[in-house]
Amino acid sequence: MTDALVIFTPSGKRGRFPLGTPVLTAARHLGVDLDSVCGGRGICSKCQITPGYGEFPKHGVHVGADALSEWNAVEDRYNRIRGLADGRRLGCQAKVMGDVVIDVPPESQVHRQVIRKSATQRDMVMDPATRTVLVQVAEPDMEEPSGDWERLTAALAEQWQVPAATIALPVLSRLQPVLRKGEWQATVVLHKGHHDSAHRVLDIFPGYHEGGLYGLAIDLGSTTIAAHLCDLRDGAVLASSGLMNPQIRFGEDLMSRVSYAMMNPGGDREMTKAVREAINNLAQSIAQEAGIDAAAIYECVFVCNPVMHHLLLGIDPVELGQAPFALATSGSMDITARDLELSAINAQAQVYLLPCIAGHVGADCAAVALSEEPQKSKDMVLIVDVGTNAEILLGNEARVLACSSPTGPAFEGAQISSGQRAAPGAIERVEIDPVTKEPRFRVIGSDLWSDDPGFAAATATTGITGICGSGIIEAVAEMRMAGIVDARGLIGSAEQVGTERMLPHGRTHSYLLHDAREAGGPKIMVTQGDIRAIQLAKSALYAGARLLMDEIGVDKVDKVILAGAFGAHISPKHAMVLGMIPDVPLDHVLSAGNAAGTGARIALCNVGARTEIERVVGQIHKVETAIEPRFQEHFVNANAIPHAVDPFPELGQIVTLPDVNFNDGGGGEGGRRRRRG
Amino acid sequence: MTDALVIFTPSGKRGRFPLGTPVLTAARHLGVDLDSVCGGRGICSKCQITPGYGEFPKHGVHVGADALSEWNAVEDRYNRIRGLADGRRLGCQAKVMGDVVIDVPPESQVHRQVIRKSATQRDMVMDPATRTVLVQVAEPDMEEPSGDWERLTAALAEQWQVPAATIALPVLSRLQPVLRKGEWQATVVLHKGHHDSAHRVLDIFPGYHEGGLYGLAIDLGSTTIAAHLCDLRDGAVLASSGLMNPQIRFGEDLMSRVSYAMMNPGGDREMTKAVREAINNLAQSIAQEAGIDAAAIYECVFVCNPVMHHLLLGIDPVELGQAPFALATSGSMDITARDLELSAINAQAQVYLLPCIAGHVGADCAAVALSEEPQKSKDMVLIVDVGTNAEILLGNEARVLACSSPTGPAFEGAQISSGQRAAPGAIERVEIDPVTKEPRFRVIGSDLWSDDPGFAAATATTGITGICGSGIIEAVAEMRMAGIVDARGLIGSAEQVGTERMLPHGRTHSYLLHDAREAGGPKIMVTQGDIRAIQLAKSALYAGARLLMDEIGVDKVDKVILAGAFGAHISPKHAMVLGMIPDVPLDHVLSAGNAAGTGARIALCNVGARTEIERVVGQIHKVETAIEPRFQEHFVNANAIPHAVDPFPELGQIVTLPDVNFNDGGGGEGGRRRRRG
Repeated sequence: MTDALVIFTPSGKRGRFPLGTPVLTAARHLGVDLDSVCGGRGICSKCQITPGYGEFPKHGVHVGADALSEWNAVEDRYNRIRGLADGRRLGCQAKVMGDVVIDVPPESQVHRQVIRKSATQRDMVMDPATRTVLVQVAEPDMEEPSGDWERLTAALAEQWQVPAATIALPVLSRLQPVLRKGEWQATVVLHKGHHDSAHRVLDIFPGYHEGGLYGLAIDLGSTTIAAHLCDLRDGAVLASSGLMNPQIRFGEDLMSRVSYAMMNPGGDREMTKAVREAINNLAQSIAQEAGIDAAAIYECVFVCNPVMHHLLLGIDPVELGQAPFALATSGSMDITARDLELSAINAQAQVYLLPCIAGHVGADCAAVALSEEPQKSKDMVLIVDVGTNAEILLGNEARVLACSSPTGPAFEGAQISSGQRAAPGAIERVEIDPVTKEPRFRVIGSDLWSDDPGFAAATATTGITGICGSGIIEAVAEMRMAGIVDARGLIGSAEQVGTERMLPHGRTHSYLLHDAREAGGPKIMVTQGDIRAIQLAKSALYAGARLLMDEIGVDKVDKVILAGAFGAHISPKHAMVLGMIPDVPLDHVLSAGNAAGTGARIALCNVGARTEIERVVGQIHKVETAIEPRFQEHFVNANAIPHAVDPFPELGQIVTLPDVNFNDGGGGEGGRRRRRG
Repeated sequence: MTDALVIFTPSGKRGRFPLGTPVLTAARHLGVDLDSVCGGRGICSKCQITPGYGEFPKHGVHVGADALSEWNAVEDRYNRIRGLADGRRLGCQAKVMGDVVIDVPPESQVHRQVIRKSATQRDMVMDPATRTVLVQVAEPDMEEPSGDWERLTAALAEQWQVPAATIALPVLSRLQPVLRKGEWQATVVLHKGHHDSAHRVLDIFPGYHEGGLYGLAIDLGSTTIAAHLCDLRDGAVLASSGLMNPQIRFGEDLMSRVSYAMMNPGGDREMTKAVREAINNLAQSIAQEAGIDAAAIYECVFVCNPVMHHLLLGIDPVELGQAPFALATSGSMDITARDLELSAINAQAQVYLLPCIAGHVGADCAAVALSEEPQKSKDMVLIVDVGTNAEILLGNEARVLACSSPTGPAFEGAQISSGQRAAPGAIERVEIDPVTKEPRFRVIGSDLWSDDPGFAAATATTGITGICGSGIIEAVAEMRMAGIVDARGLIGSAEQVGTERMLPHGRTHSYLLHDAREAGGPKIMVTQGDIRAIQLAKSALYAGARLLMDEIGVDKVDKVILAGAFGAHISPKHAMVLGMIPDVPLDHVLSAGNAAGTGARIALCNVGARTEIERVVGQIHKVETAIEPRFQEHFVNANAIPHAVDPFPELGQIVTLPDVNFNDGGGGEGGRRRRRG
């Protein structure tokens, strides 16, 4: 017998190889996922494997002690300098000398699965577009003259099966000194396109270079810009950071920014400049936070709504402000950091923008689909990404629909009398005693409730400054459950409700949640105007979901996923009391955290995911709320809390809403009246 | 019979088509070369054809008066507004109604052959990479949302069979307003790559846009930068202009510039900046000269030697100054004007650099090969491009060799005591009477000889300032023919030669060509040092040619082509008396003018020529003179005038060189001695 049987685990791939075949070579022949940056030169140590010895009845083999070649000098040197764990061998050095079972540990797999500890973070499979490879380049030969670049591409083709590559002039201009310094060995940072086989040399270093290789996943929202700095070698998130979108000074919400561009010549360019500067600052600060060189950031993935998408690209978003809401481009974009003037990161960094779904449904929604995969769900799943606009996806493996609904910024605490952004001092959770009508609450920055001992001390530094998005939703829902607000959204008077916390306010009433004036703070109230703002927002959200349910032909869904940074903080019960989302068993309401940001990270770490989401987006059917007459009808019906028409049986099992009615037929002091339908 | 026979001339293509088929459609089906920018909408009038009526015995058809449909409203309108020549029809409007013979006039052919009037200008077939097309783009539809760009690419695919296209952000940002202004019709400036099917949208205009479409063919030499501004629609050269390469201030010849880069950190970047600025200035001035908008220049083709190539690209040329003379890249380059900071022309303009052949044999030599096509020659042809370096090609359809030979700048009038660049006032032609030894000459700026009446008046404004490259070659050759210089290159004394024009000069002698001191000018002499400089230059040139002849195994060539701007002015007889080129019948020495510049124009006007020259360059065998021991031997033998060893029988038939010998055995006043053997 001259050939030995080699079995790889966990893949189970097996084959026979001549004695003396390096394990790495055998792995490559079988298509086993075994990493190597140096291409088998015993330098990078990425190809570590663990041979198994003894009996393997499952595989039907016995592995003798001499199944692999003896340790060689390369392994000795590596072990001396950097240490090789017990039982490990270098796959490029160990040669097959008999039947053997070879385990490829996770860290030696290129396409390793990254398991996240945090619940909201998704496991993902690594297959980044950018990687490093070590090449041995032929020296120049006067007899057969050729360029250094041509010999480098020949080496990439031969040693790494890279069929074609390009290089930008600034990198080409460094090629000759680098090759000579590395004595014709160089580490190449290589980026592969996902649409074709073209590769791009982004950087080159002399010899074997163990430098960093990082990417940014950026969720560019109307209000905040959030970035994750990821290690492109193992998917680790080294730092996450965010800042306010400076475009806010041109308009709080999307449409006010579109208006700004329409009313002010050059206004779009001002906003483009502002957001690009902010991204540069964010990239710089996140690199600093992680202690890495920003020049080692070679990739950027963006997800954003269509208006942010256009403003980032330098395209006037004016067409997105009027029917037919035409995007300048809807496809994904493969561009460069230079195109976006992102000078803070590597000058050759590549940028990928996920595709947009429609004029109102952006790359952020595509990223949610990439993260939550409704197209693979057996359940009929409703995904709502709640922000200034709500992106809504509904569907299952048979069909997925999408729409966008103009909720406005009320859910984010804007347009609310005591509203504020989620920051220390903001009320984020509320409970109201249904009997005494007394509230208790928690503020961001402390885990204590307001009636816990020590609360005053715990909040002394931040103060109690206002109420944030999740706080206002809980407050309104609690008010409804405590009989302070009726189904139509009217707030009762002190007399009607039976507490002095009800303050008259012209012909309407407010509920005093907290009076911080003694501590130099504000009076934090929920006014009738606040209730109306929340009603408008939640009606838009529910109407959008309902429209998709009509379109797909269902009157209930199996599962609701709340996405968006804000979605993570919404209490499912309160959301359902408000009628923000259709009635489902409470434990079928899940939070996906920042699903758009997760989608961006997936696209950053796995180039195949880009192809996948482009395919999925092409199959998602878009429903335009603005031209759909039923949307208006659904909107009106959804104004009631929770709903004027649709029953909420699941909600009814856990909550009984008081049947109050504060409509006094025209204002003034009204008695506690009840009206039945 | 429902189908009619349609025969196109001059192609002879024929086919049967249903009655009512537009002529343009029939042409497309048959692959007949009939232009159209508007795609058959009756707007651009590029598809004009001339139907023939009556008997066509050669084709075996009779064409009736009703073979085409009647003039329609579109043709009427076109004729009214812009006029249609007698007998012409619009191919997109005229429909086939019976057997017909259709002539496609040259101006309606896309790939029309451009016939040049000037002898040195080459006929060329137009197939430019950049063209304009009119597209009708679908309007946005809220029910089926898609980006404007995606609908534009769909229109390009459907209406122009463009499989895939890309667009840069600055053009994309103009897309939406342009499409709306043109009511969903737009003229697109489209650039196709020659390596793949990818197209790039360089510009877009509302509606049908009859704007200019221009390209620059630039011959970037060490001494001068010459540009031709070409109309990419018909190949016309609208203007030709040149300026001095400002890098001259860093060093006269290539090696002194390489030295400058080696000795001065950042020196290469200084030179890159200087040459890019000069090209911007040249582009601006040539556009102004032609009266066109420089923003309508969408393409640039460069030919240059390897050092200029690297400095243009921003690559330090240091490796080109030392063995093994490795190029950073030898392949052709497809880059953008932005990459080269060429801001004077359209921001999206595409740049093509021809491939280099070797470290000493550049894209300029490749351009000469493209223009002169040695690879298609049945004769064994020697092509020398004489400049500061001589590029030499030798071969025929079986095999082509190339080398570069360091002639130095003597042939350009540099390193010559009275030398100057070719400019008004420079002596460019010389004759010396073999009996009286009296010279006569012509200067640039006048057609008169110096002994013609009126010569003094004609040269009064320019003066007689020096002697240019072609002048020194003629002067030295005439001196040899008149017996003033011997075969070894020694100048005789007044006594030896028998004229007072011989002036002593230490231990050597000079020949006084002209004394302009009365007119305030210089004494113009040919010194022994000048003869030595010319001998070195011509020995290098001849040795290079001889080396290639050895390599290919011939001891004579059939034809010599002198290329280079300077080549156009060299007299073949004088070149052969000097022994610059191998002995051939005089009428087999041809001048190709600026063949490198012509090659650049060919590559600019015909994208297929780019693929062709890349293929040819890959087949040219490069010979490195620097490492070839025989080069030194050939160089030494070529020092004699015309040659120490090689016979010049063809030259001998027309010229008898005096058998003088001025070697007086060690300087001083020597008698007229002869030495044989």
